[in-house]
Amino acid sequence: MSDQTGVTAETMGHSLMTQFEGRQFRAVTLPFVSDVDKAREALRRIDAAAVEDGERPIVFGTIVQDEVRAVLEKCNGLFLDFFGAFVGRLEQELAVRSSHRAGQAHGMADSTAYATRIDATNYALANDDGSNRDYGAADVILVGVSRSGKTPTCLYMAMQYGIYAANYPLTDEDLESSRLPPALQPFKERLFGLTIAPQRLQQIRAERRPGSRYASVPQVQFELRAAETMFTRNGLPFLDTTQCSIEEISVRIIEATGIERRLRP
Amino acid sequence: MSDQTGVTAETMGHSLMTQFEGRQFRAVTLPFVSDVDKAREALRRIDAAAVEDGERPIVFGTIVQDEVRAVLEKCNGLFLDFFGAFVGRLEQELAVRSSHRAGQAHGMADSTAYATRIDATNYALANDDGSNRDYGAADVILVGVSRSGKTPTCLYMAMQYGIYAANYPLTDEDLESSRLPPALQPFKERLFGLTIAPQRLQQIRAERRPGSRYASVPQVQFELRAAETMFTRNGLPFLDTTQCSIEEISVRIIEATGIERRLRP
Repeated sequence: MSDQTGVTAETMGHSLMTQFEGRQFRAVTLPFVSDVDKAREALRRIDAAAVEDGERPIVFGTIVQDEVRAVLEKCNGLFLDFFGAFVGRLEQELAVRSSHRAGQAHGMADSTAYATRIDATNYALANDDGSNRDYGAADVILVGVSRSGKTPTCLYMAMQYGIYAANYPLTDEDLESSRLPPALQPFKERLFGLTIAPQRLQQIRAERRPGSRYASVPQVQFELRAAETMFTRNGLPFLDTTQCSIEEISVRIIEATGIERRLRP
Repeated sequence: MSDQTGVTAETMGHSLMTQFEGRQFRAVTLPFVSDVDKAREALRRIDAAAVEDGERPIVFGTIVQDEVRAVLEKCNGLFLDFFGAFVGRLEQELAVRSSHRAGQAHGMADSTAYATRIDATNYALANDDGSNRDYGAADVILVGVSRSGKTPTCLYMAMQYGIYAANYPLTDEDLESSRLPPALQPFKERLFGLTIAPQRLQQIRAERRPGSRYASVPQVQFELRAAETMFTRNGLPFLDTTQCSIEEISVRIIEATGIERRLRP
């Protein structure tokens, strides 16, 4: 439940509920609950769900306006509101009253941030998969074999952090030697390698092209061994992505390289 | 501060701090604070910042393990921990103790979710900008003129929600009539239009190709008027993206169309 998109409330709710394994919950998002009328409608839905399921719903809220929150607090559920919990302590710490105005977090308040995100995303798209190669503008260039996680990581870093991330897929030809491919040599300081467990890569490739040489055990083993040798010989930092989510790969790259984020969060 | 990537803590901190306009804060993220030793190191950094700045830092945490949190609670700052604040009330409501184990939220626990996200992202990339046109698999097809926000919205919906979103850019030729382009006609129920204020579109296009016909007032006005006529005549739902962030565009499309999310959050 949110007076805005619900992105923060969903993230918060998800993080907390993952602590209760073995329980199944049905998730419903109610975004844009931004005035008292919409709060009353949301209240009706919560209370109806409580009756229907015979269980009190758990409601995670990010509701800025006190009068809207006051309506929702009457619901027949456990209402955990993010603003209610913390904003008072922040006001006390900072010795000011907050604006209590909705729509600050994910709105267009900061149009420079918006442009940064779009520009970084366009950069990632244009410099994906070895195309274009405007590496001079890159904050980081991810290097790895096909399906090691380069593209989604570049897009995530662009959209989440405004980072200019290009990527370069290592081909068989590149992997014949442990020297860096010529296109990458001038940008050595910005390179970051991705690797992955052979079994996992084989599985991913087999889903895409079953029975192909591309997905075969020897090919996958050759590529990964050669890529890791290249990373090591050239002193590139690299990461095994097998156990990592895209968020985690991104944050680990930022940590390891010290790239400056242009956007937060 | 997080025992994981810090994505939740950053989102939470950002949402709250946007309520304190006019104050400038320096944001620092400390991810992967996952054991007592790392917590002691983080504590040193927080306390050093307090001395350096002459102001108590505000620390937003998502720390699952009690012993790690206990170290951080001693910091010379306002420590607002997300788990500390809510997990107890959830345990009480659900009458169980939670796992208190880190790494559930953004880890690889759910590899199906990971695959869904990657597949949806690949789908968005392959079906971007009128290419490919595997519209049979689309959950939604965004339609609009160049630079109306289609591509970043498709990528966001894919990465955040696992939605299969394609997009189709309206060309001058398409806009000569108010009929739907032939490629879109079989998929009318999945179409969603994006529009934008002419001034804003002109500005975006001028940054890309200054002085071009593409960025000219008459061209932009013609395209937007014709696109909106097409949407209206064919009964397509559509949204003006001028004041919207990518998150907001995405959530409004989901709300308006009732598309099922494959991922939460």
